[in-house]
Amino acid sequence: MIEFASPSTDKAILEDSGALTPKFDAHGLVTAIVTDHRDGELLMVAHMNAEALALTIETGLAHYYSRSRKALWKKGESSGNMQSVKEIRVDCDQDAIWLKVEVAGHDATCHTGRRSCFYRRIELDNGEAKTVIIDDHRHFDPDSVYGKN
Amino acid sequence: MIEFASPSTDKAILEDSGALTPKFDAHGLVTAIVTDHRDGELLMVAHMNAEALALTIETGLAHYYSRSRKALWKKGESSGNMQSVKEIRVDCDQDAIWLKVEVAGHDATCHTGRRSCFYRRIELDNGEAKTVIIDDHRHFDPDSVYGKN
Repeated sequence: MIEFASPSTDKAILEDSGALTPKFDAHGLVTAIVTDHRDGELLMVAHMNAEALALTIETGLAHYYSRSRKALWKKGESSGNMQSVKEIRVDCDQDAIWLKVEVAGHDATCHTGRRSCFYRRIELDNGEAKTVIIDDHRHFDPDSVYGKN
Repeated sequence: MIEFASPSTDKAILEDSGALTPKFDAHGLVTAIVTDHRDGELLMVAHMNAEALALTIETGLAHYYSRSRKALWKKGESSGNMQSVKEIRVDCDQDAIWLKVEVAGHDATCHTGRRSCFYRRIELDNGEAKTVIIDDHRHFDPDSVYGKN
């Protein structure tokens, strides 16, 4: 398995050298941003520990760390909506990873059955912030895919 | 200023009601994903506390919370690269916000002067993960914009 060296305290090295030295947070995680390689649509935001990042790079299939289940999470294992990774990028301070993916199965990423987790727009309405659903197309039925409980 | 109610513990309400009830983490933050409204390019990832989110919604200019400076951060105040917000979305569990923005000034978002913070691709090279710079165009000179120190 790929091992990652500790990040340099020298910003120039973090930002400009060829070394991948992810800056994992106090919980050992970096943020992962996931977009559709076809049109760039933002699909989801998740987290990766070192194991998930290494497996993603090595296998070409997106792996995350589930904070709620406290476990490695191979995306799509229950739903079939695996993510095949077309490109991986890293940001300037190396605490965020960008995956451009091709989604298998139902072409849906959200556990609600929608294509993207970002299916609601925020709008200001008489001084109050509201959410408005702008994509309600369910590509699968969550109850039958994940089970009622 | 907009105030946000506490998130419901009922997932159905979090995911389907019209209420914006951000799930701030233990540090009082949500993740903010920032893309260019023109072509969807991922520009940066940052964090927002309740004040930054409220100001962003109310003013239409992107505000974040700087974890390193421990302070509200109006993007572009030093560099001129303000972000005018064209659309705001929220994800299913309301712990991530997506801003589609128009970047003013140098049309650059990264503090290194590049358009995007994600200017490096991760590649596997003989079993080791490396980074490769794929965008090295500097829209401004960081030293002259931010000062050497």
